[in-house]
Amino acid sequence: MLRIPSSESPFLKALAGQTNAPPPIWLMRQAGRYLPEYREVRSKVSSFLDLCRTPELAAEVTLQPLRRFDLDAAIVFSDILIVPYALGQKVEFVEGEGPKLEPVSDARGLARLSKGSAAKAFAPVYETIERVRAELPRTVPLIGFCGAPWTVATYMVEGGGSKDQAEARLWAYREQANFQRLIDLLVDTSADYLLGQVAAGAGALQIFDSWAGSLPEDEFARWCIAPTRRLVEQVKAKAPDIPVIGFPRGSGVLAEHYARETGIDAIGCDTSQPIEWIRDRLQNLMPVQGNLDPLLLVAGGPHLDRRVASILAALGSGPFIFNLGHGIQPGTPIENVERLLHLVKTGSA
Amino acid sequence: MLRIPSSESPFLKALAGQTNAPPPIWLMRQAGRYLPEYREVRSKVSSFLDLCRTPELAAEVTLQPLRRFDLDAAIVFSDILIVPYALGQKVEFVEGEGPKLEPVSDARGLARLSKGSAAKAFAPVYETIERVRAELPRTVPLIGFCGAPWTVATYMVEGGGSKDQAEARLWAYREQANFQRLIDLLVDTSADYLLGQVAAGAGALQIFDSWAGSLPEDEFARWCIAPTRRLVEQVKAKAPDIPVIGFPRGSGVLAEHYARETGIDAIGCDTSQPIEWIRDRLQNLMPVQGNLDPLLLVAGGPHLDRRVASILAALGSGPFIFNLGHGIQPGTPIENVERLLHLVKTGSA
Repeated sequence: MLRIPSSESPFLKALAGQTNAPPPIWLMRQAGRYLPEYREVRSKVSSFLDLCRTPELAAEVTLQPLRRFDLDAAIVFSDILIVPYALGQKVEFVEGEGPKLEPVSDARGLARLSKGSAAKAFAPVYETIERVRAELPRTVPLIGFCGAPWTVATYMVEGGGSKDQAEARLWAYREQANFQRLIDLLVDTSADYLLGQVAAGAGALQIFDSWAGSLPEDEFARWCIAPTRRLVEQVKAKAPDIPVIGFPRGSGVLAEHYARETGIDAIGCDTSQPIEWIRDRLQNLMPVQGNLDPLLLVAGGPHLDRRVASILAALGSGPFIFNLGHGIQPGTPIENVERLLHLVKTGSA
Repeated sequence: MLRIPSSESPFLKALAGQTNAPPPIWLMRQAGRYLPEYREVRSKVSSFLDLCRTPELAAEVTLQPLRRFDLDAAIVFSDILIVPYALGQKVEFVEGEGPKLEPVSDARGLARLSKGSAAKAFAPVYETIERVRAELPRTVPLIGFCGAPWTVATYMVEGGGSKDQAEARLWAYREQANFQRLIDLLVDTSADYLLGQVAAGAGALQIFDSWAGSLPEDEFARWCIAPTRRLVEQVKAKAPDIPVIGFPRGSGVLAEHYARETGIDAIGCDTSQPIEWIRDRLQNLMPVQGNLDPLLLVAGGPHLDRRVASILAALGSGPFIFNLGHGIQPGTPIENVERLLHLVKTGSA
């Protein structure tokens, strides 16, 4: 695959440490339910997982937001639970309830997991990337992604989303060696998966650690930082030129350790992190991405304008990628997204 | 009521800025389901709210953990949703589901709230405090408490607990003036309530802001810091000698602003805050309280011993109150609590 020269992409320039005016922008979950054209495609398949596994449709929804908005990157339409599915765990998406998995919480459950047919499960994602890459303007990079080992492990142990990841944290305290085996398996499988996405045409990668915030510092070092570092090392060993964004959501003060110790190229910031702190403690280390409140994009109005201006003022004079601090909400009005793009692209009201 | 001379209570000495060896200790939700004697009392009433409103039983469960463990403070058994209940909102505790409230989300809902019969709703809590005070050793202070206006407002707007307080945050963005009216009502009512608890015999106060972590910085300043400051001012105007602990759970980096700007005497720290950061950024400003992971107290074992030692080493040489970073879990083994008390009281394994 021909690589995009980073000089032609503000997104890749920012990831390489350059300051852009205006900064590049993309939005987490930019392909999603707030778009009527997404809802139309979604209605053609019976399950969310089927949409992820049908390259023709997944490619279409990946491209939809790029047709509407002047976004600087696409992100492949998929889900972080593709990895447990690829390891043989039963994964379902129950409409209105979120994902349901058959929980793994002992050595027997671990023994049933296998990388044996992972490549087959990942193949549709790779094909989606190839299809998107063929249609995207060559200056627009496509982001590949996976969930961080800790976050994916919480879903595997809890059997779904959970309020405070208590089962996973408790198992990690009680049977550290077994939990480490699960994490190791996820590191290796996720490295293969990210490298497969790069081979298919992904020009940048993001690692989503959505539940990093539930870990106290010792466990954050053990289950968030260390596995992410090993994952990044394995990816960099074979794809040294592909930038990796880490997103340790909710990590607060600990984000600085994460930035220093994982080997990532850029860090995603969530809405709880103050922008001056991001500038002084993170942007001095590496490019930063974030962190508009997705609910403010739902609400819109003068408050949105003011906050976008504040973020641009605080972070725009260093390497920066404008994004939300969490995924876009299904109820977001399209005109508010248009307004956001206008504000960021023109730097003014 | 006779005040306890603070020289006789390590807990009050710590709140006054003194260093104690060993540090005082109490545990959030120390009266609760992990105690068989609590479960026995609980089985006598049909609902959790009835337990809070029956002074004889509420006093009994408040005292239970003090009989078992060498704790340095008691905390009145009650619930933060007593305030919405006192304002006339319908509040129920559904077994296994948590609290359910009739949501308030517009001007009409606001208009139905009234302080008119609040004093009557608070009376059982005051009587509980009087009963506990009469039985507690005079050197053991009793903590009164309330929820912070922001956190209580989220329950009132969402109709219960919620994953990310989205409805409350969205209403605050869309109808700032109405949301401000709700917050103002909560500030005034909570001030009356805390002062009533002091008059009944509470020797210290804690303000629980459990959902402080869902607010971006501008909203954190508006809905967490500003109302807490006004609440503390109103309490201090009439009870200047009663120390107030603020607990902005999940506030991460923003906890430092909270400590500097609310007028509180001490700050509670949650499990996500690194202990060296707490020492360097918060304990240099005021006494700190926290922050052992409640799940580690469930798990027990050598990992618990090591973490307690780390916390004592980092925070024990300044004004410090040992506590958990969140409420004690129902499944906590009693022997692990005994072990914790032993570790803290002897400073060794």
